[in-house]
Amino acid sequence: MSENLVVVGKSFPRKDALAKVTGDAQYTADIKLPGMLYAKCLRSPYAHANILSIDTSKAEALPGVEAVITYKDVVPKIAFKGTSQSLYILEDKVRYVGDEVAAVAAASEEIAEEAVHLIEVEYEVLPAVFDPEEALKPDAPEIHLGGNLLTIKRDQPFTFSRQIGDVKKGFAEADVVLERTYRTHMQLHVQMEPRASMAAWDSTGNVTLWDSNQSPFEIRSQLANVLDLPQNKARVITPYVGGAFGGKIAMLKAQGIVALLARKAGRPVRLEFSREEQAVAGTRRHSWTLKLKVGAKKDGSLTAYHAKAFLNTGPFNLLGIVVCLNQAHLTPKFSVPNRKYEGYVLYTNCPPTSAFRGFGYFEADFAIGVLMDELAEKIGIDPLEFYLKNHIQSEEPFGMGQVPRILAFGEAIRRSAETIGWKEKWHKPGERTLPNGRKHGIGIGISGGNAALGNSGAVVIVNENGTVTLLSGATELGQGTQGEMAQIVAEALGVRYEDVDVVNSDTKVTPFDQSQIASRTTLTHGNAVKSASEDAKQQLLEVAANMLEVQPERLEAKEGWIYVKKEPDKRVSVAEASRFFIEGKPPRVMPKGVLIGRGSYSTPSVPPPVGNAVVTIAEVEVDTTTGHIDLSRLVSAVDCGKIINPKGIEAQYESVLSGGAGFALMEELLLDPVSGKVLNPTFLDYKIPTALDYRNIDPVIMVESHERHGPYGAKGVGEASISAAAPAIATAIYNALGVRIDLPATAQKVISALSNTQKGS
Amino acid sequence: MSENLVVVGKSFPRKDALAKVTGDAQYTADIKLPGMLYAKCLRSPYAHANILSIDTSKAEALPGVEAVITYKDVVPKIAFKGTSQSLYILEDKVRYVGDEVAAVAAASEEIAEEAVHLIEVEYEVLPAVFDPEEALKPDAPEIHLGGNLLTIKRDQPFTFSRQIGDVKKGFAEADVVLERTYRTHMQLHVQMEPRASMAAWDSTGNVTLWDSNQSPFEIRSQLANVLDLPQNKARVITPYVGGAFGGKIAMLKAQGIVALLARKAGRPVRLEFSREEQAVAGTRRHSWTLKLKVGAKKDGSLTAYHAKAFLNTGPFNLLGIVVCLNQAHLTPKFSVPNRKYEGYVLYTNCPPTSAFRGFGYFEADFAIGVLMDELAEKIGIDPLEFYLKNHIQSEEPFGMGQVPRILAFGEAIRRSAETIGWKEKWHKPGERTLPNGRKHGIGIGISGGNAALGNSGAVVIVNENGTVTLLSGATELGQGTQGEMAQIVAEALGVRYEDVDVVNSDTKVTPFDQSQIASRTTLTHGNAVKSASEDAKQQLLEVAANMLEVQPERLEAKEGWIYVKKEPDKRVSVAEASRFFIEGKPPRVMPKGVLIGRGSYSTPSVPPPVGNAVVTIAEVEVDTTTGHIDLSRLVSAVDCGKIINPKGIEAQYESVLSGGAGFALMEELLLDPVSGKVLNPTFLDYKIPTALDYRNIDPVIMVESHERHGPYGAKGVGEASISAAAPAIATAIYNALGVRIDLPATAQKVISALSNTQKGS
Repeated sequence: MSENLVVVGKSFPRKDALAKVTGDAQYTADIKLPGMLYAKCLRSPYAHANILSIDTSKAEALPGVEAVITYKDVVPKIAFKGTSQSLYILEDKVRYVGDEVAAVAAASEEIAEEAVHLIEVEYEVLPAVFDPEEALKPDAPEIHLGGNLLTIKRDQPFTFSRQIGDVKKGFAEADVVLERTYRTHMQLHVQMEPRASMAAWDSTGNVTLWDSNQSPFEIRSQLANVLDLPQNKARVITPYVGGAFGGKIAMLKAQGIVALLARKAGRPVRLEFSREEQAVAGTRRHSWTLKLKVGAKKDGSLTAYHAKAFLNTGPFNLLGIVVCLNQAHLTPKFSVPNRKYEGYVLYTNCPPTSAFRGFGYFEADFAIGVLMDELAEKIGIDPLEFYLKNHIQSEEPFGMGQVPRILAFGEAIRRSAETIGWKEKWHKPGERTLPNGRKHGIGIGISGGNAALGNSGAVVIVNENGTVTLLSGATELGQGTQGEMAQIVAEALGVRYEDVDVVNSDTKVTPFDQSQIASRTTLTHGNAVKSASEDAKQQLLEVAANMLEVQPERLEAKEGWIYVKKEPDKRVSVAEASRFFIEGKPPRVMPKGVLIGRGSYSTPSVPPPVGNAVVTIAEVEVDTTTGHIDLSRLVSAVDCGKIINPKGIEAQYESVLSGGAGFALMEELLLDPVSGKVLNPTFLDYKIPTALDYRNIDPVIMVESHERHGPYGAKGVGEASISAAAPAIATAIYNALGVRIDLPATAQKVISALSNTQKGS
Repeated sequence: MSENLVVVGKSFPRKDALAKVTGDAQYTADIKLPGMLYAKCLRSPYAHANILSIDTSKAEALPGVEAVITYKDVVPKIAFKGTSQSLYILEDKVRYVGDEVAAVAAASEEIAEEAVHLIEVEYEVLPAVFDPEEALKPDAPEIHLGGNLLTIKRDQPFTFSRQIGDVKKGFAEADVVLERTYRTHMQLHVQMEPRASMAAWDSTGNVTLWDSNQSPFEIRSQLANVLDLPQNKARVITPYVGGAFGGKIAMLKAQGIVALLARKAGRPVRLEFSREEQAVAGTRRHSWTLKLKVGAKKDGSLTAYHAKAFLNTGPFNLLGIVVCLNQAHLTPKFSVPNRKYEGYVLYTNCPPTSAFRGFGYFEADFAIGVLMDELAEKIGIDPLEFYLKNHIQSEEPFGMGQVPRILAFGEAIRRSAETIGWKEKWHKPGERTLPNGRKHGIGIGISGGNAALGNSGAVVIVNENGTVTLLSGATELGQGTQGEMAQIVAEALGVRYEDVDVVNSDTKVTPFDQSQIASRTTLTHGNAVKSASEDAKQQLLEVAANMLEVQPERLEAKEGWIYVKKEPDKRVSVAEASRFFIEGKPPRVMPKGVLIGRGSYSTPSVPPPVGNAVVTIAEVEVDTTTGHIDLSRLVSAVDCGKIINPKGIEAQYESVLSGGAGFALMEELLLDPVSGKVLNPTFLDYKIPTALDYRNIDPVIMVESHERHGPYGAKGVGEASISAAAPAIATAIYNALGVRIDLPATAQKVISALSNTQKGS
C-alpha cells in the first residue's frame, strides 16, 4: 500500500492504439497463407433431425472445390472433452436450426457457397423442444442420449441443490414472503469481429490454428483431443481479437471443421463466420427460467431466499454448468442467513450458448434486484435504505461454499447515490411527471463477482538497448491487456512504459495462461508478469551493482535508470547495464549475459481472491405516448482494487454499461417458436445501443481498494460491471410507471403494459 | 565426467529432418505476404566509378513498378556501424563490378528486372586496384577516403604487429631458415540457399526483416542503426537457412535496400539473390598474400616464426579485421618460442568478402602446413615425426595474447596416422608409382581454432502434457543446432528427446544469442540452454516432491519420469507433475503453475574456452598424363570434447572435408584482371566437389575429451575441421610428384608444373 508507484495508476495510451487505427493490426481474417482455401458450412434447416443420407458428389464435382466433409470424415470419432455429452465435430444428427451438417473448402467463398447448395441431404425430422421446463418432461424429445437434463456421468443427472441455514425456518420467521418467476432472454455478444479460424497442417502431422478466441491454450487442448494428437502437435495462434465478451472461450464445431477440411485438402483452410452465422452458430447468453422466493421481516431484514433455476443450454453444453450453476451465481449479494438453490441445466433445440459477461450472476442479479425492489416497496422502505441495510459486508461469505469476497459495497452504494442525488430524486412509483410530459423514474442495481482463477506464466526479456519484451499468453481482446501488463512490467522492472513490447498468445511461444475470462487476467496473469519482471530486475540490479560498485540492495530501478538509493546522481541506465563494450576492439556492442525473467502464478482456490462491488443507478424518462424509454442518466460505482490504468477502466465501463443497458432496453435474440429458427440474426432486426442511445452515461466512480492477492493490490473489473445495469434500469422503469415491464423493455411492451393497466384501472 | 548421461552422446534424428524432406520447412524465399513486391538491383559494370547522374524516370513509369531507390533515398545517411569505413546502403560511388547502384520493387521479378534496365546512369570511371600489395602503394586509387589501408579511427591506420619472444634472436639460433610467399584464392561459400531478404513496415514505423542469415541479433542491430530506429523497432526473423558457412553473418547492402524499398513502396518487398548475384554480390573467402619465414634447428625444433599478411578485404570491411587479423589466426599450431606477425588489411576493387569457415586460420594453416612440410624435408625427417615433435601441447598458449587452448593434438595425430597407415605409406617425394601407373602421395595437415564467445540466453517452457518448448535465438543453418539443443534440454530437464520442440530465431520472441559463428553455439548457447533446463527442472522437482511426499533432493528426472532415487517404483511422470486435476468438477485439466526455465551464459573472455585439435591426412593418386588428382583417401581426427550427437559430427565432417578439399583441388573464384568482373559466377564454371569426387572420405575419428567450460564437457566442432584438409592435400600432391602445385591444384596446373620440371630437368 505504501509503495511509491511510478507507472501503475496512471493512464497510458493503449499499446495497440496505433496498430488498430492505422489498420496494421492483424485479425484472423487478415491472415493470408499461400494456397489457402475458403470454407462454408451447410447448415441444418431443422431444429432436430437425423441425417439419413448425404450426397456430396455434385459439390465435389464443382470446379474449385478441394474438399467436402461430412460426419463420415470425423475419423477418429472423438467427442469434445469436458462437455458432458457426446459432441463431435460433425454428426449424423442435428440439434438446432443452423447446426453444421457438412462443409466445403474451395478456391473462393463464392464457390464454397455454391457447392454447399449442391449437397443433397435426406433428413428424418424429429420433434423439437425449446423451453427448458418443457425439455425436462419425461415425454420431451431426447436431444442427447440419456435425456435432456445435463449429466456429468452417464447415469447421474446433474442437478445442483444446496442449502445454507434452514430456509423452511427462515420463511416461517418472515413477515413478508414474495415468490416470483422470471424469464430472461438470449443476448448476442455482438463482437465487432465474428469468429474466424484458419487451419494448416504440415506434412509431419502438426496442425496450426489461427483463431479469434479468448482461450488459446484451452482450445489447443480441445483441438488436440478431438484430432487425437499430442497437445504439442497442435498450435493455436490468436491474432488480435475484435471483442469476445465470453463468446470466444469455447472451441466450436467450426474450429474442428477447418482442421478436418485442411487435412483433407492438404492446404490451409479459413472459415470466417458471416454476421448471420455468428448470430446463429456462434454462442449467446443463455436464457433462464428463475423461480425466486424471498422472505423478510417488517424491519426489512432478510430471513430466507430460495432459488430454483432452469437453464436453457441449447443443443450442447459448452459452458452451461460452470456458467450457470456455479454455486455463487444464484445467490443474492445481500445478507440472507438461510438460503437454498436448485439448478437444472437442460438441453433444448435452441442455438448454442456459452459464457457471456456476468457469467451466470448477470441474469440472477437482474431477477434478484427486481424481487428486492418489490420487497422493499411491500415493506414500505426506500430501496436505497434497503440496499444499505442488507448488502453483504466486506469478507462476508455468500453463495454456497467457498465464496468470493465482495468488498466496499456500502461505499459504492453511497457514492453512486450521492452522485446522482438519490434522496432528491427518488419518489413513489409512478408519482413524478417531468415538465416535458414524460414520467421520471430512478432505480438501483447491485452485482459482484469476478474470479481470479487458474494459472499463468510470463517471460520478460531485456533487450540490449534496455527495452523489454514481454511474452504473454494473455490475449488482447480489446480490453487493453497489453497496456496493463506493460505497466506492470514497467513498474516492477523499473523501465518506461513505452519501452515495453508485448508479444501475445501463440501457444508455441508464449507461456501458458488459462484464458481471458472472468476478469482473471489482471490478478492472475498480472502476478505472473510482476514476478517475471522482478526476476529480471534482480539480475539487472546485480549487473548494475557491479558497475556502480555497490551492493545490489542499495539500488533501485525506475523509468529506465538504476540509482543508488539516496544518491540519485550515482546511476546507470538499464540499457547500459544490459550490455558492455569490448574496449580496445572494434566498437561492437554486446550484452553482458542475457537478462531473462520468468514468472508463474497459481491462484489459491480456497478462498479465491475475488470480487468487485458493483452498483449502478439509472434514471429514465418514459414517453407514455410513444412508449420510448430514454436512459437519461446512468451512474455506476465499482470497487476496483488498486487502479492500474484509469482510462482503461473508464473505457471498459462504457462498453459494459452499454451491454447491460442493451439487454434491458432492446437486445433480444428471437426464435420462431415453431421451427426454432433465429428471426433476427442481422443488425437490421437485432438492435444494439449506439452512442446516441447512451449519451448520458457518467464516467465510472472508481472506489479504489487493495486486493491482497493482486499485483500492487489490483484486480479485474470488466466482468461484474455489466451486471448491475439491468436491475437498475428495470426498477427505474417501474419507479417511473408503477408497472413492471419484462425485459427488454421495448416501446411496444411499455405501451401494451400501460394499456393493460388503464384497462384494469 | 562421471555423469550418467541418457540422451547426450547418442545419435538422434534431426529435428528438422521431416520438415526438410517433405518441403514443409520454410526458407525466406518461401514466405509470402499479401501485397508483396519483388526487388531487383542495378549493378555497377565498373570496378570503381563515381556516379555523376542517375535517371530513374523511365523505370518508374513502367507499369507494375512501385518504387525505385538510388543513393538519394538513403535518408538519413547513416553508415553501417562497426565497418571501419563509410559504408552506406547505397552511395554515389561504386567499388566493384556488381556493386549496387539502384534498386526497383515491382509486382514481379520480371518487371523489376526490366525496370532495372531502364535506369540510366552516367559514371565517371576511376582506376581500380585488385591486389592488396598494389593497393598499399601511395599512388594506388583511393577506394575509401583516407586510403586503402584499413583504419579503425580516421587518422590511425590499422596495422597489427605483435611479437612474443625475440624473432631476431630465434632466427639467429636457427640452422635452417625458410622464407616463402603464399597467395591464397577466393572461395565461394556455395550455400544451397542464396541470400534472400524480405522487409515489411507497419504504419507505426516498425520494420520486420525476414532474412537468411546466421546473426539475427547482429543484423537487427545493424539494420536499426542504418535506419535510425531504436533497436526494438526492428525485428529480424530468420526462417530455416540453407547453409551459411560464415557467408551470412553480415548485413549487406541488400538488406538495407529491401527495407528502403518497402518503406518507399509502403508494401513488403523481397529480394532473392540469383546464384550469380550470390557469387558476385554475396561474400566470399578473402584472398591473402602471406609472407612466412620459419627457422629450425637440425633436430627439427622450431626457433622462430615471422608472418606478414596482406589481406584483400575487397570494397568494404565486413569482417576483415576480426576474420583475418585476429591474433591467433596467423600463428602456427606448433611450439615456436619466438614468433611475430604483422597484418595489413586492404581495400581493393574485388568483390565483397566476409567470414568463411576457418575464420582466417584456414588460409594461414594451409600456408604454414606447406612451409613446415618443406622444412621437415630440408631437415630430413618424416613430416609425421616433425608434427609429433612440434605440435602444441594441451593448454599451451599459442597466438599472441590470450590464447585458445588446443587439446589432444598428439592423440589426434597418432590415431589418424595409425588409421591410414602412415608408416607403411609415406615415402620420399615422387618415389612411389602405383600399379595403375599413377603417382601415390600422402600428406598431413593440422589446424585448430573454434571460439566460444559472447552471450546467450534461452527459455524453456514445460507444457501441460509434459512436452517442452525451447525458445532459442540460435539459428538452424543446417548444422543441426535444433537437435543438439533439444538433446541438452532432454538431458538436463529429464525428458525425452522427442518431447522437445525448438522455436528458433525471431529477435522479438527468442532471447538474444550472439550469432551462429566460430563453432560457438554448442558451448555458449548450450550452456544457456542447459541452465534454462535446470531452472525448469528445479521447479518441476519441487512439484513432484509435493506429489510424492519426499524432499526434492531425493528425486531425479529421466526420460519423462521423476523418480525417488533408489526407489524407482516411486515416480510421477513429468506430464503429471506439470498439471493437476480439479477433482469433483468437470474433467478439465490445468497445470499447477506454469513451469518456465530461463538461462543465460556469458563466455569468460580470459582465457576463452576454445579449441579443437584437427588433424587430416590425405592420400592422392595423380595421373601424370591427364594431370587428374584423385583423392583416394582422407582421414581426419578431431578433439571434439564430449560428443553430444555422433551422427551430427559425422555429417558436419563430410561437409567440411568436402569444402576443404574443394578449395585444394577445384574451387576458385576468378576475376578478370582488367575489369575486375567475376568470370565464373555459375556452377557451369565454378566447380564444386560432388559425392563422386569424395567417395573416399573416412568417417571422422572422434577423439572425445572434456571441455571444462562446456555443457557436459561439449564444445563446437564444425569450424576448425575444414582447415587441415588443404595442407594435407597440398603436401600429399607434393609427396606424389616432388613438385609443389599452387591451389587449387587443377589438372592444368599439374600438367604445366610437370612439364616445367621436365624442361628444367
